[in-house]
Parts: sequence; structure tokens; C-alpha cells
Amino acid sequence: MAFIPRTRDTELLSPVVSNGHISTKEDKLQIDIEEILPITECNGETQPKLDSIISHYIQRLNKLNAVRNTNDRVSWTSGYPENQNFNYGTLAPLLNFHLNNAGDPFQGCSFSLNSTSFEVCLLDWFANLWEIEKNQYWGYVTTGGTEGNLHGILVSSSDSGEINCDELKTLLLAHKDKPAIINLNIGTTMKGGVDDLDLVIEVLKECGFAHDRFYIHCDGALFGMMLPFIKEAPKITFKKPIGSIAISGHKFLGCPIPCGIVITRSQYMNALSRDVEYIASRDVTITGSRSGHAPIFLWYAIKRKGFVGLQNEVQNCIMNACHLQHRLRDAGIGAMLNKFSNIVVFERPLDEDFIRKWSLACMGNIAHVVVMQHVTTEILDSFVSEFLQKRSIWFQDGRFLPLCIADDVGSRHCACSRHNSMS
Amino acid sequence: MAFIPRTRDTELLSPVVSNGHISTKEDKLQIDIEEILPITECNGETQPKLDSIISHYIQRLNKLNAVRNTNDRVSWTSGYPENQNFNYGTLAPLLNFHLNNAGDPFQGCSFSLNSTSFEVCLLDWFANLWEIEKNQYWGYVTTGGTEGNLHGILVSSSDSGEINCDELKTLLLAHKDKPAIINLNIGTTMKGGVDDLDLVIEVLKECGFAHDRFYIHCDGALFGMMLPFIKEAPKITFKKPIGSIAISGHKFLGCPIPCGIVITRSQYMNALSRDVEYIASRDVTITGSRSGHAPIFLWYAIKRKGFVGLQNEVQNCIMNACHLQHRLRDAGIGAMLNKFSNIVVFERPLDEDFIRKWSLACMGNIAHVVVMQHVTTEILDSFVSEFLQKRSIWFQDGRFLPLCIADDVGSRHCACSRHNSMS
Repeated sequence: MAFIPRTRDTELLSPVVSNGHISTKEDKLQIDIEEILPITECNGETQPKLDSIISHYIQRLNKLNAVRNTNDRVSWTSGYPENQNFNYGTLAPLLNFHLNNAGDPFQGCSFSLNSTSFEVCLLDWFANLWEIEKNQYWGYVTTGGTEGNLHGILVSSSDSGEINCDELKTLLLAHKDKPAIINLNIGTTMKGGVDDLDLVIEVLKECGFAHDRFYIHCDGALFGMMLPFIKEAPKITFKKPIGSIAISGHKFLGCPIPCGIVITRSQYMNALSRDVEYIASRDVTITGSRSGHAPIFLWYAIKRKGFVGLQNEVQNCIMNACHLQHRLRDAGIGAMLNKFSNIVVFERPLDEDFIRKWSLACMGNIAHVVVMQHVTTEILDSFVSEFLQKRSIWFQDGRFLPLCIADDVGSRHCACSRHNSMS
Repeated sequence: MAFIPRTRDTELLSPVVSNGHISTKEDKLQIDIEEILPITECNGETQPKLDSIISHYIQRLNKLNAVRNTNDRVSWTSGYPENQNFNYGTLAPLLNFHLNNAGDPFQGCSFSLNSTSFEVCLLDWFANLWEIEKNQYWGYVTTGGTEGNLHGILVSSSDSGEINCDELKTLLLAHKDKPAIINLNIGTTMKGGVDDLDLVIEVLKECGFAHDRFYIHCDGALFGMMLPFIKEAPKITFKKPIGSIAISGHKFLGCPIPCGIVITRSQYMNALSRDVEYIASRDVTITGSRSGHAPIFLWYAIKRKGFVGLQNEVQNCIMNACHLQHRLRDAGIGAMLNKFSNIVVFERPLDEDFIRKWSLACMGNIAHVVVMQHVTTEILDSFVSEFLQKRSIWFQDGRFLPLCIADDVGSRHCACSRHNSMS
């Protein structure tokens, strides 16, 4: 068992050996694969050997992703907001084709093996979700949230992880002569804080910024796909003066490959576009070639689940996140769960193996679990039980105490010896 | 039959209707799919209906990609440098997992479902191919060639499409006080021109630029993967003072999803990196989440074929490209094929349907065929026959004449009425 110091040290956290893959001495399965992975054969490898390598790798993935076999579960993948609860078996034959949606999905592409018709239907669905007319929007399926996000101004955040609107106001007033570009976080990565869009718009108005002097981009990586399904949640919509929304496709929806969606007002894109004769399309995306598979995966997920199916999944994730928060608090462990969020933040476990086993994402004194579709209450209960058991070992001789997380999530969510309002 | 004017007009070329997909009135199959693609069902679609949509789409892809069934071939996909000759059936079960290689492949990632061990083996193979020591290089699998390429200076090009070194010299001498960043094209998209790396290095030396005052990036999208297998070809290697090489993974190697490789000297990356505790890795890539599948596809392709298999494929593609050039020239059609290239450039056909049927990429007066692995001499012969037949119709009444391509590829490759040195 390795105790983790309070200082930021990614090396200690990183479950990695020199070849870049998780490895422990016990992991015989992996060592076998790693030995045969290097490409050294001049004449190529035999098919049986290739099949065997891939089959071993799949076994390992199944073991890591063992939540699929809940009866014999040893771990989960839960520190990260990736829905692993999907079945795209129907789409497997598509691996026989290189599909490429280079260029503007609305203009199509002269490369005939594309899936722009799926892509446009998918974008239409998002435009409808975010309340913008078909002829008013433009968008495309990206390689992920990062490609969809524009660079915004940096503003400090509050305990919940949200934008600090007082500071924003000060900044805006100090730079009244310049237009403002604001990158709003619709769900921060670590704490799941949702910036208050309405308040930001209000602050801009108060500071005298007219609509044509600001641009708001909403980075909705995970929550941008969840909030529209929660009646009481703040509305992220193009009916408000926002310029664009980006979400990750592989997070809430679930997709084998990273991808995302970006939707913006068509007025902004028309000014930027440039025709590219080679592909008979417009050069309006950041990357040239774009996956033709990603739009089909996303289209398939939404088409299969429908609005109602997605809504049920959102409610379930949030309910299960509440369950985890209550279980932790009942056990005397400080835990924060933002409103409309499925990210439960708590003290960082002291044991590296425990962190790795439960695939927890950590930052300073805090860790989090993102309660995605594949994480059941049974799994959560079993996580809490083991956490409690481990804590009793870590803290038994008094040398170590529960970490204080008040600086990260506010003292009301902290149950350290100084702040233990929870106990 | 639509005649295409000489002016640049992508709309006429674009085989597209409003929903962004290729469509002709005859294409009943497609119209059926397109009608059921929109996502309107609130409760989700039934599995049989989803299966049926996907199966129809796959039928359409097979039709477009009909080169797979050479006996009953109606078309090919040949205007674009994508190898469609692959079989990744073994990898289909990997679609059950979201794999994500976020961060630095050499540090791994705390998201356990990654394929960084495959990625590192793949990168090692490329480092070896481009002659740089393991401890001297850094790289990663990108979303495609575009992500791998850095922005370079713009320099005019010669008839073959290569960099104009006289102009480069003038520019360098005019800006001796500034460092030079040069983006070399190892195979231009349209004409397949390969910039002369040795000459560029020589010019830099002549102009007094020391090694620490220039940075050469080699954009080897397609040819970067072919030249190392041709003994006589100019060597693209880190033994020369280059800074980085990028290639596309889905071009020569073949991959269902767009991807690429970038390799650089580790000294450059160490200065730029920043640790990201959340993923327990370094933030050194452009996108955040990165496909875990792409490295496995590329690894698989190379592992299966080996150096010898790849070498055979390169030779075959170039031999077949020679065959096409000869067939065209013998028939009195001007055609250019650069040395070590598989891209045959010729006059743009006048008929839009013909262009679409044969998936030709066009630009101004020229069109090209990229002779990839799936394009056989039988297909090429059948293409030339039909081209000749069509030409006899287009030119029969003397209203239209073969287009002059001398401005694009030089008069020696042109067979228009003014330059018909070939006839």
C-alpha cells in the first residue's frame, strides 16, 4: 500500500510502466500480451497469432470493465464520465469501410463513402434539443469536446466549481472597450459545477455589453447532454444570446471512439467558410478528414433510446449519484454533489491501489466518481463498504487523518476533524 | 449529362442534395434510408428497424465500394488516397468498449480502458522507419494528417507540385533575422509532388541558417508511408535536420476511422508539456480524448503485413499507376505521374456523372486517380475504356475540345490541340 502525499504528484498516481500501460507484477495476462506487441516481424504476423493477441487484449478489457459481469465484478470504470453501457453490435460490419465526412456535412463531400446523411439527422436532433431553427444553425460531429470548444477567457471559480460572476463583472468593466468572449462550463470536469448562464447574460447586460459585443460558448461536455432532460434545470438554449454549444459524444451517449457535437449559429460560419474544390465541400471544420463512423454511433444511440429513454437514463444517473452521496455522508465521509449533477466529490483515498482498482480520478485532496449508466447502486454500495474498510486501516493508528476538502468544496461538505459537521 | 465549365464551381461538382448525401433520382435504396433516418421517435426505435436501416446503408456502401466484388463492379473509389483494401474483422469485438488514450502515450493514462501499449509499439515502429532512437523521439496517434501538421510558411510550387526552392531562397534571404519554419509536402494532395528535402536543407545552409534557426516539418500524409519502401526514393529521415513527420493512418495503411501519426524529437516536446493530474498524464496532444481504437487498427495492419508486405503493396500501387499513365498516353490523353508517386493526373472529364461514377477528385482543369491497393489493372483498363468512349461523345461535334492542362502539369504532359506532343 502506498500512501499518497498531499502534494501534486502525478507519477505516484499514474498506474503506468515505461511502455505506457497499466501493469502490476501479478498481471500475468498483460505481460504476455506486452511481450508480443512490438512489431518486429519483417514478413508479417500469422492470423492465428494476431487473433490470439486481440483476444487476450479483449479479455483484459473485460476484466478492467468488469462491471459488465456484475456477478463477478472486481472493479468498475467510474472516475471518468464515459458511459460504457452500450451495444453497437449491429454496426460492426461498418468496420469494413473507411468512412470519411471531410468538409461541411450540409454540403456533403465528393468522397462517396460518407455518412453525412446520418450526421445531418443527428445535428437536426441537437438543434431541436437546443432550440434553434434548422435554417439558423450550423454544426458538425467533432473528434471530441476539445475540438468543439473555443478558447475563452479565464475567470476564477467558486467552491462548487462555477464561474465567479463578481469577478467576471470586474473584468468586464475593466475592459469595456473590447468585445467579450466567454467560455461557460456546463459541468466542470472535476466538480460538475454548472455556470449560471442567465446570471452571466445579466452581468453582461449590466456592464453595458450589447448582443453584438459578446460571444458565449457553452462547453457542455457531459452535462450539455443531461440538462435538457431535467425539467427544473437551467435551460441551455439558443433562445438565449449564446453563440455555440459543444458536447462530447462518448460521454453521456456512449461511443467506442471519442467524438463530439458542436452547434453554432449559421451566421457565424458563413463568414468563415472557404470552398475546397478537391472534396467539393466547404473547409469549415478544424480537422480535414472526419470520422464517418462517429455520427452513425451517435445517431444509433439516440435513435434507439429516443427522448424518453435518454430522460430515464439521466434521472437514473442522478438518483444513483444522490444514493452515493448519502451513503458516504451517512458513513461520516464528506461528499459534495452539485445540483443536476452525477459527479460525487469526496476526500481522496490514501491508497494508490484502491484508487486504481476503482478507477477514481483525483486532484489534490479530492477524488470523484462519475455515476454513469453502467454504475448501479449495488456497485456503489460495494465501493462505499470497501472505502470504509480501507479507511479504518489507514486511520487506525492516528498517523493519518481524513483529508480536509473544505478548500475544494466548501466547509459544509467537509467531514475532516476540523469541519466534521456531518458526523 | 452535364458539361462542366472551366470556372471553379464546386456546386456543379458536388454530388449532393440538401440533406448532405449523394443522391440521384434512380437511387431508390438511398431514398428509402433517408426517409427513416431523421430522429423523431420519442420512445426510441425498435431493434429490427434499426438493423434494417444499417443493413440498407451497408448495401449502399458495398455498391459504392463495388471494387470489392470485381466481377460485378460498377464503380470504384479512386479519386482519394484511402486504401479500402482491409479486413479488421478480428477487431470487431473492440466496438464493445470505449477506449481512450487521453494524454501522453508514453506516460499512459489513469483511464484504464486504453490502448497505449499498442500505440507505443506502433510509434516505435515508425521511429525505427524514420531512423530516430527510442529515447530521442516523441509522438502520438492523431485524428488525422491535419492534426499532425503544423502551419508552415507559404511558398509557390512548380509544375510537379513541389516547393519552388528559388523562391524559398529569396524569402529566406529577405528574412535572415527571423527563424524559419518550413512545412514540406511529402506528396502533395493533387499532383503527388514531393518536396526535395535535401535541396531545402542545402538552401537553408547557403542562406546561413544554422540548425537551431530553422524547423522543418514533413507533411507525409500519403507518401510519408510509401517512400521508405522505395530504395531509390529520397530519404525522409531524422538523420537529416528535420523536426517532425506526420502521416495519415487511413491513407496508405487503411483504417475505418481517420487517424494519423506524428513523430517529433523529444527535446521539443519536453519544453511544451504540462502535467494533468486528472488523467495522470501530460497534456501534450491537441485533442484531449484520443481514440484507443485507431492505434490498434494501425498496429494490426503493420503487424499483419510486416515490412515486406508493405513494400510489396507500395511497389504494386506504383506499377499500377505507371500502367494507367501509359494507357492514357497511348490513347492520346495527357497524363502526369510524378516519380515515386501513385497519383495520375490528367484532363478533367467533362461529364459530372462520369466523375461521380469513378469518384474522381477534380481541381480546375485537372482530375486525378490515386492508385491505391484496391485498384487493379483490370479496373484501370475499364476506366480508360469508358473514358475514351465518353470523350468520343463529348468531342464529336467539335463544340468541346480536350482541356489544356499545361498550366497545371507542364506542356510536356499535355495533349490538348496546342500541346499534343503525345499523339
